[in-house]
Amino acid sequence: MTELMQRLAALAKASDGPEGLTRLFLSPAHGQAAGMVAAWMEEAGLVAEIDAIGNVVGRRGAGPRLILGSHIDTVRNAGTFDGNYGVLAAIEAVRRAGPLPFGVEVIAFGDEEGVRFPRTLCGSRAVAGIFDPAALAGRDADGVTMAEALAAFGLDPGGIAGLARDPREILAYVELHIEQGPVLEAKQLAAGVVTAINGASRYAVTVSGAAGHAGTVPMPMRRDALVAAAEMVLVIETVARAAEDLVATVGSMTVRPGAPNSIPGEVRFTIDLRAPVDADRLAAAAAITAALERIALSRQVDLALTQTHEAAATACAPWLRLQLASALEAHGIAPFQLPSGAGHDAMAMAALCPVGMLFIRCKGGISHTPEESITAEDAEMGVEVLATFLRGFMPDGRHV
Amino acid sequence: MTELMQRLAALAKASDGPEGLTRLFLSPAHGQAAGMVAAWMEEAGLVAEIDAIGNVVGRRGAGPRLILGSHIDTVRNAGTFDGNYGVLAAIEAVRRAGPLPFGVEVIAFGDEEGVRFPRTLCGSRAVAGIFDPAALAGRDADGVTMAEALAAFGLDPGGIAGLARDPREILAYVELHIEQGPVLEAKQLAAGVVTAINGASRYAVTVSGAAGHAGTVPMPMRRDALVAAAEMVLVIETVARAAEDLVATVGSMTVRPGAPNSIPGEVRFTIDLRAPVDADRLAAAAAITAALERIALSRQVDLALTQTHEAAATACAPWLRLQLASALEAHGIAPFQLPSGAGHDAMAMAALCPVGMLFIRCKGGISHTPEESITAEDAEMGVEVLATFLRGFMPDGRHV
Repeated sequence: MTELMQRLAALAKASDGPEGLTRLFLSPAHGQAAGMVAAWMEEAGLVAEIDAIGNVVGRRGAGPRLILGSHIDTVRNAGTFDGNYGVLAAIEAVRRAGPLPFGVEVIAFGDEEGVRFPRTLCGSRAVAGIFDPAALAGRDADGVTMAEALAAFGLDPGGIAGLARDPREILAYVELHIEQGPVLEAKQLAAGVVTAINGASRYAVTVSGAAGHAGTVPMPMRRDALVAAAEMVLVIETVARAAEDLVATVGSMTVRPGAPNSIPGEVRFTIDLRAPVDADRLAAAAAITAALERIALSRQVDLALTQTHEAAATACAPWLRLQLASALEAHGIAPFQLPSGAGHDAMAMAALCPVGMLFIRCKGGISHTPEESITAEDAEMGVEVLATFLRGFMPDGRHV
Repeated sequence: MTELMQRLAALAKASDGPEGLTRLFLSPAHGQAAGMVAAWMEEAGLVAEIDAIGNVVGRRGAGPRLILGSHIDTVRNAGTFDGNYGVLAAIEAVRRAGPLPFGVEVIAFGDEEGVRFPRTLCGSRAVAGIFDPAALAGRDADGVTMAEALAAFGLDPGGIAGLARDPREILAYVELHIEQGPVLEAKQLAAGVVTAINGASRYAVTVSGAAGHAGTVPMPMRRDALVAAAEMVLVIETVARAAEDLVATVGSMTVRPGAPNSIPGEVRFTIDLRAPVDADRLAAAAAITAALERIALSRQVDLALTQTHEAAATACAPWLRLQLASALEAHGIAPFQLPSGAGHDAMAMAALCPVGMLFIRCKGGISHTPEESITAEDAEMGVEVLATFLRGFMPDGRHV
């Protein structure tokens, strides 16, 4: 086993429970993991500290800085590599890159997943200067506020505002992460360059028809909410398939009354819509809304469609994409570009500076479960590509 | 309010709880209701008794007998008229019919709904001679066996076998019931003649695809179990609409993992298929099975389809249908014929003798809820039609 894979396995033992890996923001396991990461940063020649929001920050060199990073918090019953790989790979890449003509920070963000408190991306938001102090009053499932959890972790929430970096001092943010999707594996590529982090829209839909006895209501007299919803699910798929790089998912659905001998009177479902280009997503949303209204009308059911979430896409800077692609090519990897369907700290960091992302292949596209897996070879390749990128890194015009 | 509607309202107060109407087999409310029904039978000139399975049986006259009846047990939170109307209307019809040249029994069956114990139709099965003694060992939710419940009700299970009527002594069984469906209301008819009690097939279906992150798996790489299931729901509807008098319902559906940001990996749903002609139902089942297999193949999902229930249709005797139709016409009602989608005591009684059923209109097709409703005029019309039928009743050849 490589040293990197050994470290990832060791880090995965820092868990809030004895079974599997669960490492919530500001938990004892988070503290333990932060300590390990700080030690490895120091070993790699970085000066490490834990900042006021619980990020582990390692610095090297002076002047305008390139920030590398990812997160070390996890979902419940998580895999070993989501976030953690990007942090340890960045530390190792900085070490291997040797002396660089610019400053470097490696940050292990403490809250990307947003599992414990109502907010998400708190670590990267603080660094980017867009942390909302109201988040400190948010409570976890035990009623503990984020402010109380920070204090219990030995941190002073009063220091968070001071974490915001001066944009004039930051060259870019680059994040290495496992793909969490099946595309690179299908393309037989170890790594790829991210074009954008998809924008997302979510909707809650309620279809109301008429419940009834499954035996006594003739087919032509029915207003079956599930049959109408089924037609809607298919039209949502059709709209998504017609657009490039757009995905649409009906992930949850509940049927009422939900008995085998009852005609469904009400169906509730969700729509999750994502695309790297906001205009594509908005066009698909409009097409889906119109199609659902048509179906509701023709099936004489009521439709209530509410938007529950909207996030714009985060474009990766073209000049960073170009330099990351060159680094891939230097290692004989075709510079394939793909959108990111999942969210990342780079979304928050984009408020501070240009961002770029590199994905490495993961097995079966599976993430957020203990089955999450990457090969040692791909893990090494990610480090090498990132080190090559660092050695050849040219800031864009802003800082020249 | 008519006396019949007053009696129905009074009977509805015999409930196992203070709120609404719930009257389970052999409960104290059942005992109370049985007492009320027995009293009204005696008042109408019938000799009433409670038999060994808890049916209230009222007899009048000698020789071969026509049995009229329905049930007085209810579902939980039931309506006032399901079963109860048929019993009280039959008592009143016998009274109004006056002297008849044949014997009559009116039976208030005690267990049609099958809510308390695992078995159903126990009262009519006992009278028809097809009661399974193994049912006595079945337990209710509190662990009480049916044998214990009968004893607590003051009955001797040993007497059940003796309840079976001699087929040579029974002319027919005729049941008056609310439709529990919307057809008569839509046809603007107060009553109609039942052609058959639908046969039924039920299936449990599991569709297994591949779960995944809603953001990271491109549309062409998905094996979304819900999209496949949606296509199946629509094809089931299409098959049912193409057949006459056949109904098919997907009444329950569960989606896993069931999160807005997860591609559904598994969907389970039920199919309920009913038709008055068994061959039609079996043909539809075959068509649905073939279509589901085609969809599973084309969407690369796994399909597990298990039959969980099958019951043959119960045809109503053509000669009884004819006489019931004549009685309708005598009251100026077009003799519309329709299948029964719900089950009735007549299904069990068909093992003993020819059966016939008359439906009266109910509001909105709604049943098994407190909103179940019939008009006093329709209720009276049902009594009058049944009385007319009794006065004109001619046994078929068997007994002449």
